[in-house]
Amino acid sequence: MLTRVKSAVAGFMGGIMAGGSSGSGGNPGSELPLKFPYMRPDFLGLSPDEIECSADHIARPILILKETRRLPWATGYAEVINAGKSALNEDQACCEVVVARRSEGLVFHYWALFDGHAGSGAAVVASRLLQHHIACQLQAVIEILRNLASPPPTVLGEEPDCAPGSPCSTPPPPRFFTEKKIQHESLVIGAIENAFKEMDAQIEREKQVFNITGGCTALTVVYLLGKLFVGNAGDSRAIIIRNNEIIPMSTEFTPESERQRLQFLGFMQPHLLGNEFTHLEFPRRVQRKEVGKRMLYRDFTMNGWAYKTIEDEDLKFPLIYGEGKKARVLATIGVTRGLGDHDLKVHDSNIFIKPFLSCCPEVKVYNLTHYEHGADDVLVMGTDGLWDVLSNQEVAEAVTAFLANCDPDDLHRYTMAAQDLVMRARGILRDRGWRITNERLGSGDDISVFIIPLMYGNRQP
Amino acid sequence: MLTRVKSAVAGFMGGIMAGGSSGSGGNPGSELPLKFPYMRPDFLGLSPDEIECSADHIARPILILKETRRLPWATGYAEVINAGKSALNEDQACCEVVVARRSEGLVFHYWALFDGHAGSGAAVVASRLLQHHIACQLQAVIEILRNLASPPPTVLGEEPDCAPGSPCSTPPPPRFFTEKKIQHESLVIGAIENAFKEMDAQIEREKQVFNITGGCTALTVVYLLGKLFVGNAGDSRAIIIRNNEIIPMSTEFTPESERQRLQFLGFMQPHLLGNEFTHLEFPRRVQRKEVGKRMLYRDFTMNGWAYKTIEDEDLKFPLIYGEGKKARVLATIGVTRGLGDHDLKVHDSNIFIKPFLSCCPEVKVYNLTHYEHGADDVLVMGTDGLWDVLSNQEVAEAVTAFLANCDPDDLHRYTMAAQDLVMRARGILRDRGWRITNERLGSGDDISVFIIPLMYGNRQP
Repeated sequence: MLTRVKSAVAGFMGGIMAGGSSGSGGNPGSELPLKFPYMRPDFLGLSPDEIECSADHIARPILILKETRRLPWATGYAEVINAGKSALNEDQACCEVVVARRSEGLVFHYWALFDGHAGSGAAVVASRLLQHHIACQLQAVIEILRNLASPPPTVLGEEPDCAPGSPCSTPPPPRFFTEKKIQHESLVIGAIENAFKEMDAQIEREKQVFNITGGCTALTVVYLLGKLFVGNAGDSRAIIIRNNEIIPMSTEFTPESERQRLQFLGFMQPHLLGNEFTHLEFPRRVQRKEVGKRMLYRDFTMNGWAYKTIEDEDLKFPLIYGEGKKARVLATIGVTRGLGDHDLKVHDSNIFIKPFLSCCPEVKVYNLTHYEHGADDVLVMGTDGLWDVLSNQEVAEAVTAFLANCDPDDLHRYTMAAQDLVMRARGILRDRGWRITNERLGSGDDISVFIIPLMYGNRQP
Repeated sequence: MLTRVKSAVAGFMGGIMAGGSSGSGGNPGSELPLKFPYMRPDFLGLSPDEIECSADHIARPILILKETRRLPWATGYAEVINAGKSALNEDQACCEVVVARRSEGLVFHYWALFDGHAGSGAAVVASRLLQHHIACQLQAVIEILRNLASPPPTVLGEEPDCAPGSPCSTPPPPRFFTEKKIQHESLVIGAIENAFKEMDAQIEREKQVFNITGGCTALTVVYLLGKLFVGNAGDSRAIIIRNNEIIPMSTEFTPESERQRLQFLGFMQPHLLGNEFTHLEFPRRVQRKEVGKRMLYRDFTMNGWAYKTIEDEDLKFPLIYGEGKKARVLATIGVTRGLGDHDLKVHDSNIFIKPFLSCCPEVKVYNLTHYEHGADDVLVMGTDGLWDVLSNQEVAEAVTAFLANCDPDDLHRYTMAAQDLVMRARGILRDRGWRITNERLGSGDDISVFIIPLMYGNRQP
């Protein structure tokens, strides 16, 4: 079924499908087989027919977990497809209890959202594999993480200065350099950071033999050692709502938020700008007739603005251009961290985007044991489709109000709350547009939401 | 008098004086004349004898404003010399009402602290000249800042689409690109940022003809348009204490806080590391016998730590090394932003430090008109000598408690509070060491403090 839909739509959409070529320029991988077929999250348990129906850009049905299905911690989930910007839903989700190496007993909870662009290939691959990279990185340090009594050793495999339990006959040799003490928590952060890097490297390698289109953002939550580790590379967002308080658990990486990093790179490696872009920022395009006049600009060191005399060099297109959701790097991409995009180039040029993108997440830590959580204390993860139209405050109010009206013992309440949230962000189709409260425009983007109750963290490790 | 002291001490100290050579290696400028002689802030009105006495490393007298002298807004000031780490006080201070171009009426209030290292030359020059660079940058935009009714024009000197006041015969040509709206405030920020850059460039130029030793941090406050603009390059700090609440107005730039920027630069421009340093961070020096083993490390993209197999390359000294106040860039310098240091090299090498230093301040803005300030609401500026031993909370409690015991109409109260603060940070000489409350060690560094009452901001513009 899916294949038929795909072929039919691909004809209209010019091949932005998982199996087609990427939106921007020829995709050398398009004759290659898919690494994984397009899908919706396994845990939704959709039939091929249901998957087809879910891609209806007019009805935009909100998909939720069936009542018979349960995610760890009674996590709630809901999603909806975009209003037509891509044939398929380019968001992907994953939620698992990952058992890394049964014999050693490394177990962690894992939730993840991926928001794809220029094809769903990278998002599908990442939603299938990123947790295994995290498991693999954690395995390398599991013995150390287990031994919370002593700090992580600086060097592995060093013999201790004397046998444990026996008195030392000679004192240990003096250290001439002080040694930084590293926390166990930092090893988990490092493991997640390197897992993202490995995932990105795998996509790059496997693009040689598989068709893996586009790129994707990645927002992951790992529960281990009584802590939530929230890793974010992209413009998805996670917040904790605790007793009506909002605790941001991620920051967005966009051309605007990463402007100085990108301008610094463009300044230091000007060949990456291909003689077509300038690392300077201007409030708008410079026109040729303005050469010699003074125009507002800012350089990578600046947060303020000043005037400079316009030169020919300044006629090049700015590396960072546009405001808010329209801001772009190299006139191409609106998000500056994520996985994939190895082939992405500036339209009609040989300028690669990837050197400006980072696959490295920012990891924030929340210690679940430091607070007694009630049934309405939750972590909300959403792709930008949610946060583009609803503020943190609106999301918190909606979730809090919704949960207050549910039976606290109803395990389906978090899924219902997620459905409510997606509904509020998508809105209602009226007057040929999706409308939410106060006549605002609803989100025409793919929207995916996890709502994770926090009280289970300390109950079932 | 000063000269006598200087010669006497220079003999002992190996010439770290303003007029001597810098501490690190030969200084090519040491035969050149001074740009400005060593001094203490003009507003202290010290005689040469008093200046000599102020440099007593045993007594460490706290210098304050004489009762007959007044700074703008009744600002309080106090300072003390270090306990012997340099012959002279390498801190400098400036406080002025700057009248930039009398005819046009650009007037701003200005407070600044500079903390010198490897000589006091750069700090003295910056304390004399930085305000003029700020004035010069602001002059270029004063007409625009005056006209708050319309946003700053993107291009200067463009003719309006039709004469003002007359009806347009033809509509203005359509703009094909949207235009970013820049706030007036951003022009002041840009002016301060570029003024720091110009100051640094002037020091570099004038080192050809003058002896300007070392480098310095710079913390400046500009009051203009009803707002305080706090610019910081270095490890000094400014906080606002308002109704017992602490509002941080700066962040410190140190090898630890700027680790990722510095590692990224070292990674991208490895020649700057001179084949002696590695951009990777390790918890301690790697030993040759550890090659092949796995050791904790982190790269520029990481905040966590992971293990890597040690290679020969990793035996190089880490670009960032040490913790807290002992952290160093290239084993040389403990602060990563400031002015000067153009000649500074890694000891016994040809590796320059300057490429890793930034002269660009971070500028934070505080709108004085948004709040009704009482007599005890103040901005405290201090060099790291203050903040190394007292926390924000301790400073806020000390200042609040001190001011509460003063007559609110006593204009000398802020100077007395500054004196109290410097006393608390220096401590009392006891058992061959400077001790503060709870038997902690007092600061052996130079300490300089401004206490600026905020209620005057809205009274006398």
